[in-house]
Amino acid sequence: MTDVFNHPWLSGLLSDAEASAIFGPDRQLAHMMAFEVAFTRALGRAGVVAEDVATTVADQLAGFTPDIADLQVGSGRDGLPVPALVAQLKALAGDNAKAVHSGATSQDVIDTALALSVQEFNALLRKRLTGLVAALRNLIAQFGENQMMGRTRMQAAVPITVADRLETWVQPLEAHQERLAQIQPRVECLQLGGAAGNRAALGENATAIAADMAQQLGLQNPERAWHAMRDGIAEYAGLLSLISGSLGKMGQDVCLMAQQGVGEIGMDGGGGSSAMPHKQNPVLAELLVTLARFNATQVAGIHNAMIHEQERSGAAWTLEWMILPQMALATARSLSAAKTLSDQITRIGTAA
Amino acid sequence: MTDVFNHPWLSGLLSDAEASAIFGPDRQLAHMMAFEVAFTRALGRAGVVAEDVATTVADQLAGFTPDIADLQVGSGRDGLPVPALVAQLKALAGDNAKAVHSGATSQDVIDTALALSVQEFNALLRKRLTGLVAALRNLIAQFGENQMMGRTRMQAAVPITVADRLETWVQPLEAHQERLAQIQPRVECLQLGGAAGNRAALGENATAIAADMAQQLGLQNPERAWHAMRDGIAEYAGLLSLISGSLGKMGQDVCLMAQQGVGEIGMDGGGGSSAMPHKQNPVLAELLVTLARFNATQVAGIHNAMIHEQERSGAAWTLEWMILPQMALATARSLSAAKTLSDQITRIGTAA
Amino acid sequence: MTDVFNHPWLSGLLSDAEASAIFGPDRQLAHMMAFEVAFTRALGRAGVVAEDVATTVADQLAGFTPDIADLQVGSGRDGLPVPALVAQLKALAGDNAKAVHSGATSQDVIDTALALSVQEFNALLRKRLTGLVAALRNLIAQFGENQMMGRTRMQAAVPITVADRLETWVQPLEAHQERLAQIQPRVECLQLGGAAGNRAALGENATAIAADMAQQLGLQNPERAWHAMRDGIAEYAGLLSLISGSLGKMGQDVCLMAQQGVGEIGMDGGGGSSAMPHKQNPVLAELLVTLARFNATQVAGIHNAMIHEQERSGAAWTLEWMILPQMALATARSLSAAKTLSDQITRIGTAA
Amino acid sequence: MTDVFNHPWLSGLLSDAEASAIFGPDRQLAHMMAFEVAFTRALGRAGVVAEDVATTVADQLAGFTPDIADLQVGSGRDGLPVPALVAQLKALAGDNAKAVHSGATSQDVIDTALALSVQEFNALLRKRLTGLVAALRNLIAQFGENQMMGRTRMQAAVPITVADRLETWVQPLEAHQERLAQIQPRVECLQLGGAAGNRAALGENATAIAADMAQQLGLQNPERAWHAMRDGIAEYAGLLSLISGSLGKMGQDVCLMAQQGVGEIGMDGGGGSSAMPHKQNPVLAELLVTLARFNATQVAGIHNAMIHEQERSGAAWTLEWMILPQMALATARSLSAAKTLSDQITRIGTAA
Repeated sequence: MTDVFNHPWLSGLLSDAEASAIFGPDRQLAHMMAFEVAFTRALGRAGVVAEDVATTVADQLAGFTPDIADLQVGSGRDGLPVPALVAQLKALAGDNAKAVHSGATSQDVIDTALALSVQEFNALLRKRLTGLVAALRNLIAQFGENQMMGRTRMQAAVPITVADRLETWVQPLEAHQERLAQIQPRVECLQLGGAAGNRAALGENATAIAADMAQQLGLQNPERAWHAMRDGIAEYAGLLSLISGSLGKMGQDVCLMAQQGVGEIGMDGGGGSSAMPHKQNPVLAELLVTLARFNATQVAGIHNAMIHEQERSGAAWTLEWMILPQMALATARSLSAAKTLSDQITRIGTAA
Repeated sequence: MTDVFNHPWLSGLLSDAEASAIFGPDRQLAHMMAFEVAFTRALGRAGVVAEDVATTVADQLAGFTPDIADLQVGSGRDGLPVPALVAQLKALAGDNAKAVHSGATSQDVIDTALALSVQEFNALLRKRLTGLVAALRNLIAQFGENQMMGRTRMQAAVPITVADRLETWVQPLEAHQERLAQIQPRVECLQLGGAAGNRAALGENATAIAADMAQQLGLQNPERAWHAMRDGIAEYAGLLSLISGSLGKMGQDVCLMAQQGVGEIGMDGGGGSSAMPHKQNPVLAELLVTLARFNATQVAGIHNAMIHEQERSGAAWTLEWMILPQMALATARSLSAAKTLSDQITRIGTAA
Repeated sequence: MTDVFNHPWLSGLLSDAEASAIFGPDRQLAHMMAFEVAFTRALGRAGVVAEDVATTVADQLAGFTPDIADLQVGSGRDGLPVPALVAQLKALAGDNAKAVHSGATSQDVIDTALALSVQEFNALLRKRLTGLVAALRNLIAQFGENQMMGRTRMQAAVPITVADRLETWVQPLEAHQERLAQIQPRVECLQLGGAAGNRAALGENATAIAADMAQQLGLQNPERAWHAMRDGIAEYAGLLSLISGSLGKMGQDVCLMAQQGVGEIGMDGGGGSSAMPHKQNPVLAELLVTLARFNATQVAGIHNAMIHEQERSGAAWTLEWMILPQMALATARSLSAAKTLSDQITRIGTAA
Repeated sequence: MTDVFNHPWLSGLLSDAEASAIFGPDRQLAHMMAFEVAFTRALGRAGVVAEDVATTVADQLAGFTPDIADLQVGSGRDGLPVPALVAQLKALAGDNAKAVHSGATSQDVIDTALALSVQEFNALLRKRLTGLVAALRNLIAQFGENQMMGRTRMQAAVPITVADRLETWVQPLEAHQERLAQIQPRVECLQLGGAAGNRAALGENATAIAADMAQQLGLQNPERAWHAMRDGIAEYAGLLSLISGSLGKMGQDVCLMAQQGVGEIGMDGGGGSSAMPHKQNPVLAELLVTLARFNATQVAGIHNAMIHEQERSGAAWTLEWMILPQMALATARSLSAAKTLSDQITRIGTAA
């Protein structure tokens, strides 16, 4: 039960194939290799190594399949896979080993790979936010003029329209679209710093190499190495939790609306019970609450990981690895569950 | 020891007078009264009540000092002070009671008062971020070319310049300035919703009244009642924790730099010990770490409070009251402590 | 709004006078002075200083009123009030200054004072748990055989008795009584370590002095200095959150039972609304949810504070000061609110 | 990177084979089947179904391999795998279907399966705590009389012995052994409640059936159904975080001791760098800090999940599934990493 997103049976409830692919090991390794290929090509174009050597090596790297078992051993020894990976790549390049990773460091590889995953994930977020906003606006178009009881502090207050409540589900999503656009330049960023973050080993070519890599990889802000500045990551974790949090409010509302005695919503497809076959449980609505509280919990860990000592913190950085991808998967699943839930709704409120 | 920010002696370490004033009861009550005054004036201008009556009542309200003991009793009974306050105001207005709060609700008063505090606090944040960035840039100007050991994973790596490390302290603050500007339109917002949030009791005048009030109060986005949409609040809590988190990294670095055997920094004004008078403890640097972890903890609570049931959640809303002001005070103190610490620094690194 | 427990009006909802006294500055200072008095007397009995000198000084200390403003200044400078306090006490003792604090350190004073507050608070917890268990058992006696709908996953399941649900409120409280008894020996403990925690400056008298002090102060486990081992504190924070968490479940249930359309509970004394005078809001039930989520949030901070560097962490320790007392107050208020709520209940379920 | 414990390469750093097996799907499913087998046998012995029928069915169940793909589909539909599993089991039993699961419910199966995993995990914790305490006591025996600098508030204070510091690593572990023994009766408990938790469908046989099952499964406290009382789970999560938290303090200390310029510890086997082959990074010590902060973060989520609505909360319960197993794995890895780290230490402090 330790990885609910890819668990043999809980995955039926919690998995999100697109998000799992984006943050999965295959794509992650591909991004790491993309870094190394781009770096080698940039070294060549900058004249740090001969351009034909760079091209030869980059092509070798591009076709290479790393030995994963060796990366596993290396991660146990070094705390991360890059030293082992680089050793494989240098062995592959043979006499051209100096065209591999020279002047870069482990954090450059892993943080740039993360930025590439984040970039792909942002495209998924945009797509899903758009789809969910449309689905909710469609519900408003269908049922918005229906009546229901407005409820404050868990008590009946005064009648409202269905649109009144559903606007509180959809407007935050529109705000999240705005937030996402503002955040992208702060997180879809190349990381290139070298051993201690100052690109010293790249000398006068550093800026050109970084710009070239950003161009190749489609990343932003090559001017700046962000290795020890985790504000972008923490802000991003916050956005993920804002999204799932807004959907948690929607889920909580649906759970309350679906109660016996309240009956403000009709849905197809609720879950069954092993003891009471007649029940229709609002499984996806509950799931939205779960995912919201999951991410709300995790965001604290990522904010703690901002306290990143000196030029690189092993401890704080590894904490990000343990938490951030799970937050992304929870957010993606939250969006897909909310969409499915929206599609299951057959009635809200009562015709006026 | 329960309110460290205003504690008889711990306040010496933790208090922040400007921030305490902004989030203190006096200013909060003033903001609540400002809401009621602006609302009454707007009712008059919209013709909901006679304009001269509105003016008379608004002037009465503007000069009124509420009975605090009664608000305390009322808060215990109602969960918030507004019903008791409104009863006082209606009694004050006498025959003109209908010019007071009619069509508004408690949440309008408290959330708008919060928005006014946040607006004031944002001005303080801007001022302090500017000052701290300047102080750190000044340190870079003084010591930036000095040498020090770059340290990764708590181990000596390769030499860097002092500027290399200090850039990781200052650049996130510059990013926070950008974030703050982007967030302001999402949090410095009028709240006006009425009983269930849809402004129903204000009828066709609702939009004009809201626009009038926003104008009077200097707030934004009057089109939208945000009572049940807490994404702005949660995003704001995140920004506060981003700021203190970045300063926590600076504080952690200073603690490590000040160690015996490392000696990368010289400071005036470290704290004393009751057992070892010779010691110079990096008290403010430690405090930055404390405040960062405090806010990192709290941000989870605010994200959980996004799950705001239906048209108003008593439970989630009260949780915001318990947490958000403390986060603001911790952030303000973090900024002031970082500034003082910057001013205490007499040396970083070693002249090349 | 920054100290909700002692706020001019929110205190009406959130304050707990007994708990505030226990963790308040007056009692805290009294405990700190109790440490110093007991220490001086123990020094005398151990022959470290002449016994008559010790008696004279201890009596002086016992009658002394510290200068609080000086403690505030000292806290700002030193990060804690003890160096300033000790300076005052040594000045008071004049030529006998060596009978004051010699061989002790700041952490001994503050952690022992905390243990004394915890001990008092545990007595309050025991009393309130006992009272609340009795009140809930009384409700079971009154209404336990009534029928109500069992609800799983927010949906009507099968009928149950009222006793079935109320047992889930009361049994955890009985378990908490057991937990509290088990924890007491791990937290009601003398702290005496001296400058670096090993009692070195007390030499061969250390054990006798510690035993004497524990006897005087009614504390346990004098054998062991726990200054850098915060497991007891973290476990204790966990217990506080377990208590408020169980009551949060009760509060959430009451909120759900009180909904229009559900109507499973009748209560006197719900809160009013500024817009809808007819409403009866389940204010105390909501408050139980708030306090549970507040403490659930905070417990993460205290667990993070276990990472207490070396012989004393300023950063982690200060974090405890910011969080633990608030958790105690929230827990105390949770117990008092649950008791009041129990007393307000006039009906649960339906007579069979 | 979403399941770091079983990730292709990060597992080299983070995996714990024994713990992963205990909380893995295979063992979880075996525990669920063990519940159903024991339940059917108990039904037979209580005479609810004919004993020979019960024996026949129980033997069928004991030899059955569930269709996992069907459980996955069922989990997506029902929010958990049990309805689908029970349908498979009833189909297997054919005409004897009434001997399967009749009077039990999903939560009985999953919570009892969890209790069985916890019980196995507690044996692992006991074994590892014992081994680690011995290893640390061995270090004290080897190096305890060496000198090192006592450090408070990150500053050199006064010399201490190595034993002084190492006692702060080992004593909390001994306290955790005591805590574990006290907690076991509160978490290694049978869950049997039926549809709404009151065992109504089992009638007068309920107590006997529960006692029989507890006997078969080696679990405790059959008197009580704990389905809606999650205090045991939350307390247990707290213990896990206490263990990893104490080891986080040890890890932080080792990181600080291993710094260039401090040099208080010598170790074999530190990790390498891709940029600086000469470095020896204290990878396992950093990992202890990471795991401590990971669990400190998660404990907040589990405490939030105590707010378990009514007779069963889908939302809060699913949150436990997402968090608790990860906490167990983090704790197990923390213990194994601390043991390996202890074995890597070749020197602490300086011979007196």
